[in-house]
Amino acid sequence: MKESEVKKIAVFTSGGDAPGMNAALRAVVRTASFYNIECYGIREGYNGMINNDFIKMGARSVKNIITEGGTILKSARSLEFKTKEGRQKAYDNLVARGIDALVCIGGDGTFTGAKVFSEEFGIRVIGVPGTIDNDIFGTDNTIGYDTALNTAMDAIDKIRDTATSHNRVFFVEVMGRDAGFIALNSGLATGALDILIPERKDSIEELFETFEKAEKAGKSSSIVVVAEGEKLGSIYDIAKATKNGFPDYDIRVVVLGHIQRGGSPSCADRVLASRLGYGAVIGLMNGQNQVMAGMQSNRLVYTPIEEAIKKHNEIDQDLLKISEILAI
Amino acid sequence: MKESEVKKIAVFTSGGDAPGMNAALRAVVRTASFYNIECYGIREGYNGMINNDFIKMGARSVKNIITEGGTILKSARSLEFKTKEGRQKAYDNLVARGIDALVCIGGDGTFTGAKVFSEEFGIRVIGVPGTIDNDIFGTDNTIGYDTALNTAMDAIDKIRDTATSHNRVFFVEVMGRDAGFIALNSGLATGALDILIPERKDSIEELFETFEKAEKAGKSSSIVVVAEGEKLGSIYDIAKATKNGFPDYDIRVVVLGHIQRGGSPSCADRVLASRLGYGAVIGLMNGQNQVMAGMQSNRLVYTPIEEAIKKHNEIDQDLLKISEILAI
Amino acid sequence: MKESEVKKIAVFTSGGDAPGMNAALRAVVRTASFYNIECYGIREGYNGMINNDFIKMGARSVKNIITEGGTILKSARSLEFKTKEGRQKAYDNLVARGIDALVCIGGDGTFTGAKVFSEEFGIRVIGVPGTIDNDIFGTDNTIGYDTALNTAMDAIDKIRDTATSHNRVFFVEVMGRDAGFIALNSGLATGALDILIPERKDSIEELFETFEKAEKAGKSSSIVVVAEGEKLGSIYDIAKATKNGFPDYDIRVVVLGHIQRGGSPSCADRVLASRLGYGAVIGLMNGQNQVMAGMQSNRLVYTPIEEAIKKHNEIDQDLLKISEILAI
Amino acid sequence: MKESEVKKIAVFTSGGDAPGMNAALRAVVRTASFYNIECYGIREGYNGMINNDFIKMGARSVKNIITEGGTILKSARSLEFKTKEGRQKAYDNLVARGIDALVCIGGDGTFTGAKVFSEEFGIRVIGVPGTIDNDIFGTDNTIGYDTALNTAMDAIDKIRDTATSHNRVFFVEVMGRDAGFIALNSGLATGALDILIPERKDSIEELFETFEKAEKAGKSSSIVVVAEGEKLGSIYDIAKATKNGFPDYDIRVVVLGHIQRGGSPSCADRVLASRLGYGAVIGLMNGQNQVMAGMQSNRLVYTPIEEAIKKHNEIDQDLLKISEILAI
Repeated sequence: MKESEVKKIAVFTSGGDAPGMNAALRAVVRTASFYNIECYGIREGYNGMINNDFIKMGARSVKNIITEGGTILKSARSLEFKTKEGRQKAYDNLVARGIDALVCIGGDGTFTGAKVFSEEFGIRVIGVPGTIDNDIFGTDNTIGYDTALNTAMDAIDKIRDTATSHNRVFFVEVMGRDAGFIALNSGLATGALDILIPERKDSIEELFETFEKAEKAGKSSSIVVVAEGEKLGSIYDIAKATKNGFPDYDIRVVVLGHIQRGGSPSCADRVLASRLGYGAVIGLMNGQNQVMAGMQSNRLVYTPIEEAIKKHNEIDQDLLKISEILAI
Repeated sequence: MKESEVKKIAVFTSGGDAPGMNAALRAVVRTASFYNIECYGIREGYNGMINNDFIKMGARSVKNIITEGGTILKSARSLEFKTKEGRQKAYDNLVARGIDALVCIGGDGTFTGAKVFSEEFGIRVIGVPGTIDNDIFGTDNTIGYDTALNTAMDAIDKIRDTATSHNRVFFVEVMGRDAGFIALNSGLATGALDILIPERKDSIEELFETFEKAEKAGKSSSIVVVAEGEKLGSIYDIAKATKNGFPDYDIRVVVLGHIQRGGSPSCADRVLASRLGYGAVIGLMNGQNQVMAGMQSNRLVYTPIEEAIKKHNEIDQDLLKISEILAI
Repeated sequence: MKESEVKKIAVFTSGGDAPGMNAALRAVVRTASFYNIECYGIREGYNGMINNDFIKMGARSVKNIITEGGTILKSARSLEFKTKEGRQKAYDNLVARGIDALVCIGGDGTFTGAKVFSEEFGIRVIGVPGTIDNDIFGTDNTIGYDTALNTAMDAIDKIRDTATSHNRVFFVEVMGRDAGFIALNSGLATGALDILIPERKDSIEELFETFEKAEKAGKSSSIVVVAEGEKLGSIYDIAKATKNGFPDYDIRVVVLGHIQRGGSPSCADRVLASRLGYGAVIGLMNGQNQVMAGMQSNRLVYTPIEEAIKKHNEIDQDLLKISEILAI
Repeated sequence: MKESEVKKIAVFTSGGDAPGMNAALRAVVRTASFYNIECYGIREGYNGMINNDFIKMGARSVKNIITEGGTILKSARSLEFKTKEGRQKAYDNLVARGIDALVCIGGDGTFTGAKVFSEEFGIRVIGVPGTIDNDIFGTDNTIGYDTALNTAMDAIDKIRDTATSHNRVFFVEVMGRDAGFIALNSGLATGALDILIPERKDSIEELFETFEKAEKAGKSSSIVVVAEGEKLGSIYDIAKATKNGFPDYDIRVVVLGHIQRGGSPSCADRVLASRLGYGAVIGLMNGQNQVMAGMQSNRLVYTPIEEAIKKHNEIDQDLLKISEILAI
């Protein structure tokens, strides 16, 4: 396939929003504009594709959005796109506008949809990893992850102030249904006494031992960071079990929740998003299809979208060990 | 009483911690040092007074703490101080050190203790209002309130990003068990669709009407800020009732929690804390007793501690109206 | 004059931009919309009035701008408005659209123009104080001032880290050509060793004495905050003189500059801007003219615009004294 | 050399301070403590080594410093260490305490000193790259770089607000005497119209062309980010030349300066610092000498300190191209 063959592309954001999606979008639109490729934005992800909600985008349509969290194209889950009929409608809309290829900004749900769609109808697709969870294979970091880490860290730093002032134990839940990246890194960065993540088999006994060790070392307050997807139980259960084990502890639970998805993206996320958005358009121009653009060791790489979905970045076991050694 | 009569003072923080307590503490210690008054810090509030946990403080002991959240003297509730025996022990410890007067940094619980103690034993006390809730009479703002407002606002701004991207309705709980100051001001500052506070009789019907109005005006996402002490029900109940009334809404709940107590104090809080800490020592030197130092219209004022406890700053009814007019 | 007489208003921002101008603009537009008053925005201040650069604004035109620094209507100085011909053109444009009254968001230059214009042509005007300098009479704080204080403080806090690590002396210039408010408050909030402001007659001798006192007290690093308009000389001159006096000092100069004008407004500034924008429209409805809306002791007040220009908020002399006592 | 042979180490920070140095220090001290290695801190870098300014450090001495900018051990340049006599004194002090090895946190000046010292006296050394400039070979990022990027970006975002409001052109100088990393990444992240860095031969003609292109594209305000070490001339010269070429432009210069060195470290910097501090001690235990600990592609690597000094990370040429494509 020759470069000249990409004449019109469409871009959309899908799945949970992540800071930097707008920066990625800006990069896609401006790179397309630079290379004289026509570019459409599709609103609300696959739903907009089905409902024909397209907007023409030029260099000026993405003015000043690099600083903004969320996504100006909005995002949504689409049940209809899971049906053949839905996808057919979507495809017809693309054909009607003469769109050659799609840039899909999102996580593995988004990529799975794109893969099926591309296989079914032959439309070319390229993925850009946008999710705070960092659980996509083929890129060192996903867009939004670095910002979410800083948000979680800032919140835990604030909780530390009150924990220390009152000699309290705080259990803090951070996002990550399947992956402990946010928990592990924000916990390490805030000196958490313990970090509970789904990738490791945790036990209440070990947690108790850690508390005992901390007491012996003279720590009078503690923070335990718990990933949303922790398998030992809900954060409330864990807090309750701890209260039973240590009735004297003044224990509090904080669930950070959706603040972790928002906010102006960090510099690293803006740069990453800019490079990947650029890389996606360049990839399409160079004939890439069914791949995801990622950055590894500061280099742009394309990974088959199937691998990006199936494989997963592993938690660095060293980090768990380091966090234990440094916590007390 | 002559100025020269204050020779030794002690300062402590008590009740929920608030950003700026350290700045107030620094001001007390350095003002005392400047006027050659000896100064002790008491750790963990009234508990430390009972347990004889005093530390000598000089100008260098409060170095660099102006930027820090929490309180280096720590804070705690004291059940023992509620007993006559506890207070007697506390008093004996003060007498043993020759302490003439106390500077008490905290909220109304702290002040109530100080008042009883002063009436009982004749020890001179002066209060400095440190609480994020802003529910103390005799000062335009309490120390920590401005910082808490900015923290809540930043968090809600982030939630706004994801609310807008997904066309969602978020209910966000902010602190304020008895007072709606944080809810009202952070809600106004973030363009909240509605603000539910204990000072106003709210109803689900009115809330629903507001949602309907917003829909008509074309708003596709909304944030409702709810004070902790809202009387209509828990935030989860209100969210559930809303889901029943508007089954299509994609509704989420976020409880901001303890992040609101921490963080480096804002400029306004550091300045306020500095002025009040200074004002407390000057007040003692000028013979004040059983009063609270406050700032009103940029002027230092002393209010009888009894009034500070009993009366309350009223929510500005105008603000409620303004927030309604500006929200849609 | 009856309420019903205000049917069409126009709003503009002028002079140096300040964080919260957008929040004020939003409040003006939405309050007007609520009371069925037609509202125009004028771009680039008086220039747009002359060049007929008006845009119709409704509740949705100010969506989401409450969080944004700067001003979406832009701001500019206008030489042409200083001429009779310029003002005549401006007036003709207002008449052609049937505009009854103007809301002018800006500082004393803006208000002076408005006053002259109103006296000359009888057009009704109301001012809203938007300037980071806080040098407007008739309001406790101007819009943008609180945000600028926090920005300056954050920057100085960062400089403190490097000053302490290297035992250095930093001279930091903050904005304030005629007023020392930013210098005094940000200096107090960051524990500056000395604060040089135009309102006080400073001398190199006193500065040197302060350095000597600090040395004796064992301080190994220092920050001196200097207002832009300091009369002792430029910050570079003062730094040079200090180097001559204390050749061993490792001295650096930082000029904070325009970062102080930008950024998302603080909660206090958003609330203030919302109240004043609302108050301006209400004022016009109630027949106010040639006044400025301000907040004093948490209450909306209207001050004759002439007074707002001529009188000035005084620096609190207490603050200077407090900052000296607390610095060492 | 066997693991058991490292019994006593000393750690110090040297050169320009960088956010995260404290986090690295904490990691060194706590890892040493965990492995029962005695640990000393040396104050003010090589000067303290010469002046015998050592402090014994245990796990509790580095409590809560992970959040703090600067370095609690302080940093300084040492002329005396450049002399043989100075180094002899330093070595004698180490011998007197029985110190086996040194962990040196700093940049290439620090490493050069360490290398000479180790070669001369046989003392074992390991480097940890702490500098905001990111110009050290052997690690993807240096400690402090990510935080400095975010600080520069936040400042430029604020300047953007005022640039846009006034249709101005701002030239903003960021740190980087020899390297354009901060300029390039912060410029890309803030949508700078042009980025001038020492690694590329820039010309006024090209800069003017860029301005002309921007005008044609309808941009009414612009930011040009200039690295401190730009070879085209000082930022003031460049601004002046631009004013000559475009007399209508309203041009301002901001030099960000030392704010870029301070501040609480970002999550990425805290994690990086923790891993490298840990890696330094582990490296010494494993017999490493005259190497630097770095992270490459998320893996701990040791690079001969000579290489770390002599080689340099190259600016990614792609980034320059991307920034041009995305700017307009």
